[in-house]
Amino acid sequence: MENEKEEAKDKAKKGEEEESSVEKIFENKEVPSWRKQLTVRAFGVSFLLSVTFCFIVMKLNLTTGIIPSLNVSAGLLGFFFVKTWTKVIAKSGLLTQPFTRQENTVIQTFVVASSGIAFSGGFGSYLLGMSQRVAQQSEHTKDVIDYKNPALSWMIGFLFVVGFLGLFSVVPLRKIMIVDFKLTYPSGTATAHLINSFHTPEGAKLAKKQVRKLGKFFSFSFLWGFFQWFFTAGDDCGFASFPTFGLKAYKYKFFFDFSATYVGVGMICPHITNVSLLVGGILSWGIMWPLIENRKGDWYPADLSPSSLQGLQGYKVFVGIAMILGDGLYNFFKVLSRTLVGLFVKFHKRNTNMQIPTTENFSPSRKAQSYDDQRRTQLFLKDQIPKWFAIGGYVTIAAVSTITLPHIFHHLKWYHIIVIYIFAPTLAFCNTFGCGLTDWSLAAIYGQLTIFTVGAWAGASHGGILASLPACGVMMNIVSSASYLMQDFKTGYLTLASPRSMFVSQVIGTAMGCMISPCVFWIFYKAFPDLGYPTSEYPAPFATVYYSMAKLGVEGSSALPKNCLKLCYAFFAAAILINLIRDCLGKKRSWFIPLPMAMAIPFYLGSYFAIDMCVGSLILYIWQKVNKAKADAFAPAVASGLICGEGMWTLPSSVLALAGVKPPICMKFISRATNSKVDKFLGS
Amino acid sequence: MENEKEEAKDKAKKGEEEESSVEKIFENKEVPSWRKQLTVRAFGVSFLLSVTFCFIVMKLNLTTGIIPSLNVSAGLLGFFFVKTWTKVIAKSGLLTQPFTRQENTVIQTFVVASSGIAFSGGFGSYLLGMSQRVAQQSEHTKDVIDYKNPALSWMIGFLFVVGFLGLFSVVPLRKIMIVDFKLTYPSGTATAHLINSFHTPEGAKLAKKQVRKLGKFFSFSFLWGFFQWFFTAGDDCGFASFPTFGLKAYKYKFFFDFSATYVGVGMICPHITNVSLLVGGILSWGIMWPLIENRKGDWYPADLSPSSLQGLQGYKVFVGIAMILGDGLYNFFKVLSRTLVGLFVKFHKRNTNMQIPTTENFSPSRKAQSYDDQRRTQLFLKDQIPKWFAIGGYVTIAAVSTITLPHIFHHLKWYHIIVIYIFAPTLAFCNTFGCGLTDWSLAAIYGQLTIFTVGAWAGASHGGILASLPACGVMMNIVSSASYLMQDFKTGYLTLASPRSMFVSQVIGTAMGCMISPCVFWIFYKAFPDLGYPTSEYPAPFATVYYSMAKLGVEGSSALPKNCLKLCYAFFAAAILINLIRDCLGKKRSWFIPLPMAMAIPFYLGSYFAIDMCVGSLILYIWQKVNKAKADAFAPAVASGLICGEGMWTLPSSVLALAGVKPPICMKFISRATNSKVDKFLGS
Repeated sequence: MENEKEEAKDKAKKGEEEESSVEKIFENKEVPSWRKQLTVRAFGVSFLLSVTFCFIVMKLNLTTGIIPSLNVSAGLLGFFFVKTWTKVIAKSGLLTQPFTRQENTVIQTFVVASSGIAFSGGFGSYLLGMSQRVAQQSEHTKDVIDYKNPALSWMIGFLFVVGFLGLFSVVPLRKIMIVDFKLTYPSGTATAHLINSFHTPEGAKLAKKQVRKLGKFFSFSFLWGFFQWFFTAGDDCGFASFPTFGLKAYKYKFFFDFSATYVGVGMICPHITNVSLLVGGILSWGIMWPLIENRKGDWYPADLSPSSLQGLQGYKVFVGIAMILGDGLYNFFKVLSRTLVGLFVKFHKRNTNMQIPTTENFSPSRKAQSYDDQRRTQLFLKDQIPKWFAIGGYVTIAAVSTITLPHIFHHLKWYHIIVIYIFAPTLAFCNTFGCGLTDWSLAAIYGQLTIFTVGAWAGASHGGILASLPACGVMMNIVSSASYLMQDFKTGYLTLASPRSMFVSQVIGTAMGCMISPCVFWIFYKAFPDLGYPTSEYPAPFATVYYSMAKLGVEGSSALPKNCLKLCYAFFAAAILINLIRDCLGKKRSWFIPLPMAMAIPFYLGSYFAIDMCVGSLILYIWQKVNKAKADAFAPAVASGLICGEGMWTLPSSVLALAGVKPPICMKFISRATNSKVDKFLGS
Repeated sequence: MENEKEEAKDKAKKGEEEESSVEKIFENKEVPSWRKQLTVRAFGVSFLLSVTFCFIVMKLNLTTGIIPSLNVSAGLLGFFFVKTWTKVIAKSGLLTQPFTRQENTVIQTFVVASSGIAFSGGFGSYLLGMSQRVAQQSEHTKDVIDYKNPALSWMIGFLFVVGFLGLFSVVPLRKIMIVDFKLTYPSGTATAHLINSFHTPEGAKLAKKQVRKLGKFFSFSFLWGFFQWFFTAGDDCGFASFPTFGLKAYKYKFFFDFSATYVGVGMICPHITNVSLLVGGILSWGIMWPLIENRKGDWYPADLSPSSLQGLQGYKVFVGIAMILGDGLYNFFKVLSRTLVGLFVKFHKRNTNMQIPTTENFSPSRKAQSYDDQRRTQLFLKDQIPKWFAIGGYVTIAAVSTITLPHIFHHLKWYHIIVIYIFAPTLAFCNTFGCGLTDWSLAAIYGQLTIFTVGAWAGASHGGILASLPACGVMMNIVSSASYLMQDFKTGYLTLASPRSMFVSQVIGTAMGCMISPCVFWIFYKAFPDLGYPTSEYPAPFATVYYSMAKLGVEGSSALPKNCLKLCYAFFAAAILINLIRDCLGKKRSWFIPLPMAMAIPFYLGSYFAIDMCVGSLILYIWQKVNKAKADAFAPAVASGLICGEGMWTLPSSVLALAGVKPPICMKFISRATNSKVDKFLGS
C-alpha cells in the first residue's frame, strides 16, 4: 500500500533537477555543529508531533491498515510549530539560535522514527493478531486456544529490545548507499526538497499559505468528527453507517461513510490506487461474496457464526491473503533482481571510479557533483559514527533480546531468534537498497515470509502461531526501521544535516515511539472493547489476516472451507499475472490496470473506505481540472488537514470512551417496514 | 415579509443613477410594436416558468409562508430560456425576430402575475384556513363545525371571478403614477435594470455566468432534495428532522433542517430579517413556551390535544397574530400617511407644473427627462388602454362575481361583496401608491382587516368565519394584483415595453395563474394527506393563523386560554413600540433592532427555518468579506439556484407521493436509551 510513493518518486526527480543550485542559495547560512542541531525546542515539537501522528497512524492501522505517507504533514506542521515558537521567542528577545533546515530535518527524522513504530509495532497486525479476540474468530480443533493478549508492559519491553536493531544494522552502510551509490530514496529526497524550500523566503511564504490551508481543513475535519460523535450511540448508528446507496448496498458495504480521513487519504494516494480499491470491492463484495453466499450449506456449514473463518469470512480473509502474497512475492523478486543488478552496476562503477577517477571527470555523475554534491558530501562525511559502535550496538542488543524474548513469548525459542538475527542484516540491506531504488519498503512482505518460515519450523504442536507472529514482529521492526533510517540519511544529506544528529534523533525518536505507540494503542484497546471484531468501528483487518497467515503456515490449508484453496490459487496467480502485464505494458500504457495489492484490501473490509478515497480522488481530479497550479500546491495540505483533523479527534474521542461518556443520540437507518414496527413499539 | 425589498429599493436607486444614458445604448435598436412584443415563444417560456415558480411559491406558502422576491430568478431564467431558444433557431436559419428586452419584460410580467396568484390565492392562508383539517384544530362550542374543503372546481371559479378585478381597477391610473408622480416602485425598477443590463453585450456576458452559477446550484439543490427523499420513510425521519443541536433542542424546534431552499432564502433576505426570525424563535420557543408549558393544568387544561388552540398552541398562534397585527397596523398607518402626504405633494407639483411649465426647466426633475424620460414617456403613452374599457371591465366582472360568489360561499352575502367592491378600488389605489413609495405591498394586512370587518358584520350565528375568509380573499386578490400590475408598468416604462402588451401579458398570466395555482395546490393537497397539520412536512402555518383571526373576529377573545389576551396586548404594543423606535433612530442607527413581523413568524413554527436562513446569511456575509464584488454579482444567482432546485424537486416528489411510491429508508434519531430498547426489540 505504499504505492503513493510512485508519485513521490516523480516529484523527487523533479525536485532534484530543480535544486541544481540549492546550496548556492544557502551559501551564506552557517551550518550549525551536530550538537547544535539537536535543540530542545526541536525535541519538544517532535514529541508533540509524534503523539499526534501516533494517534493518526494507529487509527488508520485499526480501521483499514492503509497508511498514506504523512511526511508532508509532518514537515508542514514541524515547520509551523518551530517557526511560531521562534517568532514568539524572537519578540521577547530571548532567541539565541535561528531555526535552521538542519533542525527541521531533525524533527522530521524524529517524527518518522517514532510514528514508524506505530506501524511496524504491529498493533494492527501481528501484535493484535496474537490476542484472544482475534484468535477465537477461527475454529480450533484443540480445546485450548493459544493466545497472548496485549499488555502495556510486555509490548513496551518487546519494542525496546527489537526497535533499535534496524538502526545499528545499516548505519555502517550509509556512505556506500548515499554517497557512492547515490540511491534516489524518492520519499527522502522529496522531504528534503520540501524542507529546503521552506527555508527559502519564497518557500516560507508558500508554506505559510499551505499551513493556513492545512489548519482550516484540520479544524473542519476535527469538528466534523466531533459532530459525528454525537450521533453514534450504539452499533450501526451515525454517519459511519450511512446507507448512501440504499440498505441493500449497505449490507454489502457499499456506502459513503463520511470519513474526512479517507477522503484525505484518497487525495494523497494516486488515482489508480483508489480505483483499484473500488474495483477490488466490486469484484469481491459486489460479485463473489454474494455468489458464495448462495452456496451456504453446500460450500460451508450454514450454522456457523458470521465471523467464523470456516465460513464466508474465511473466503474473504484467505482469498485476500493469496492476492497480497502474490503481489508481495512478485514485487519481492522484482525488487530483489533490481537490487542485485543495481548492486552489480554500482559496485562495478565504484571500483572503476576509485581506480581511474580522472576518466570520469566529465561524466554526468561527476558534473553533478560540481558544487551541491561536494558540499553535501563534505558535511555528510564530517561527522562519523564509528563502525565498532554500530556493530557493537547490534550485537549487544541482539544478545539482550535473545535472552529476553523467549521470556515474553514462551513459544519463540532462542534458536529461532538467533537465526533471525543472522539473516536480518542482509534482508535489511536488501530492503534498504530496494527502497532506495523504488521507494517501496517491503517490510510487511519480509514479515510475512518470516511467519511462514518460523511457523513451519516451530510446528503446530509447539504453538507455532505464537512463535511465528513475534518472529514476524522482530523481522518487520529491523527491516522497516533500517529503510526509514536510510531515507532520513538521504534527507539529511540533502539538507546538510549531520548524520550523527540524524542518528541521535532517530534513536531518541525510536525510544519515544517504543513508549508512545503502546500507550496510544492501549488507549484504543481499552476505550473500544470491540476493537478487532469485524463489526467494530476499529475492525483491525490485518490482525485477522496475520493470524490467519500464521495458522495457515502452521496447520496447512486443510482447515479452509470448500473451494477456498482453489480460489486462493487463482487469485495468487492473478496477482502475479496482473503485475506482469503492468510491467510489460510499461508505466504509461498500464494506467488502467488495477494494482493487485490495493484490490485485495477491500476483500475483507468492503468498499466503504474505497468509496471515500474515490471521492477524494474525484475532488482532486476536478480541482486539477479547474486550477492545476493551485491544486498541486495545496492538495497535499488539504489532505493532510483532513487526515490529521479527524485523526486528532480520536484522542478526545477515546478519552471520552475511557471516561464512560457515551454519545447521546443514535442516528439509525432502518427500512420503512421496520420503521413502522419500531414506531408502533415506541408508541405503545 | 417583503422586507427584502428594502434592499431592492437601494439597488433600484443605484440602478437609476447608473442608467442615466441607458436609452442611448439602445438607440439603434428598434422597439417592436405591442403586438410583436407578444411572441409565441415568450408565452411558451412564460408558461413553463409559471409552472416552476408556482411549485416553488406553493412549497414556500405551505412550509413557512415566507416568500422571498423571485424576480431575479424569473428574470435570469426567462432570459436564459429565450436566449437558448433564439440561438438554436438562429442556427437553423429560421429566426425571424431577435430577442428584445420588451419581450423579456412581457415574460417577466406574465410570470409575476401567474405566480402572484399562488400567493394571493391564499392556498397557504385563507383558502386552506376554511378546510376541515384546520378548523378542527380549535375547540368548538357547536357540534357542527363550519368548513369548506378545497376542491379544484370552486377554487378555479373563485379565482377567475376575483383575480382580474385588481388589474382593471388601477389601469386608468398608470399615467398618473408612472409618468406624473414618477413613483419609484423599487422592485419594478430593479427588474427593469436587470433586463436592460441583460440586453447590453457586457450584461449578457455576466448574465451567462450568473445563469451558469444558477444552473450549478439548481442541480445541486435538486439532487440534494432527491437524495434526502430516500431517507424520509415515516414521520420524523430524514434530514428535515436532524437534531443538529441535540434532541432537547430539537423538541423545541431548534435544529438545522438541511433545507437548501431556506438557506437560499436567507441569502436573499437582508441579514436583519434572518436575525429577527432567530431572535423571535429564541424568545418564543426558547423562553416563553417552555415557561408557559410549566403552567400546564393552571393556565390551560392538561388533557388537551397538542394541536388544540385552547392549549399551548393557542398562545403560539394568537401571540403571533397580535405581533403581526401590531406591525401591520403600524405600517398601514405609516404608509397611509406617507401616501397622503405624497399625494398632496405630487398633486400640488403637477398642478404647478402644468400651469407654469417653464419655471422648472432647469430643476433636476426636468433635467432627468432629457433623453431617457422623453423617449420612455413617449412610448409609454403611445399605446393607450381606453378608460371605458377599464371601468367597463371592472363593473362587469364585479357584477358577475357578486352573483357567483354567494353560490360558492353560502355565508358570504351579495351585500358584503358589493361593499367590498365599492371600497376595493380606493384601497387598491392606496396600496399601489404606497408600494410605489416603499415597495411594501400590504395586501395581507388589507385582507386581515377585511376578515375582522366582515366577520364582525356577519357574526357567529351566520357563519361569520366562512364569510370573512373568502371576503379576505377577494380583497387580497384585488389589492395585491393591482400593485403587481403597477410594478410591471414601471418595468415596462423603463424597458420601453408597451403598456398594452404588458396588460395583455398580465391578463393572460393571471388567467394561467388561476388555472395553474389551484392545480399545483391540488397536487400538494392530495399527495400529502397531513398537509395543514402542525406536525406535517407542510404545516401551512398561515392557514391556522387566518382561521384563528377569523374566529377571533367572529367570536371575540373569550375562547382564548388564560393570560393569552394579556400577552397578545403586550406583544401588539411591543410590535408598535419596536417599529416606532426603529423609525425614530433612523435606518442606519436601528440596524440592530429586530423587525416585529419577522419575529412573529417563528412563534408558531419554531426556529428551524430561521437557522437555515441565518446559515444563508452567514454564507453571504463570509462571501462578501472574502470577495465583495463576486458575492454581489453571484449571490442572487446562487440563492435562486438553491431555492428553485429544491422547489423543482417538490414536483417529482409530489408525483411520487401521488403514485404511492414511498421512500425506502428511515433515518431516525433516537436517544441512546431508546436505541438500546429498539435494538432489543428488533433483535428479538
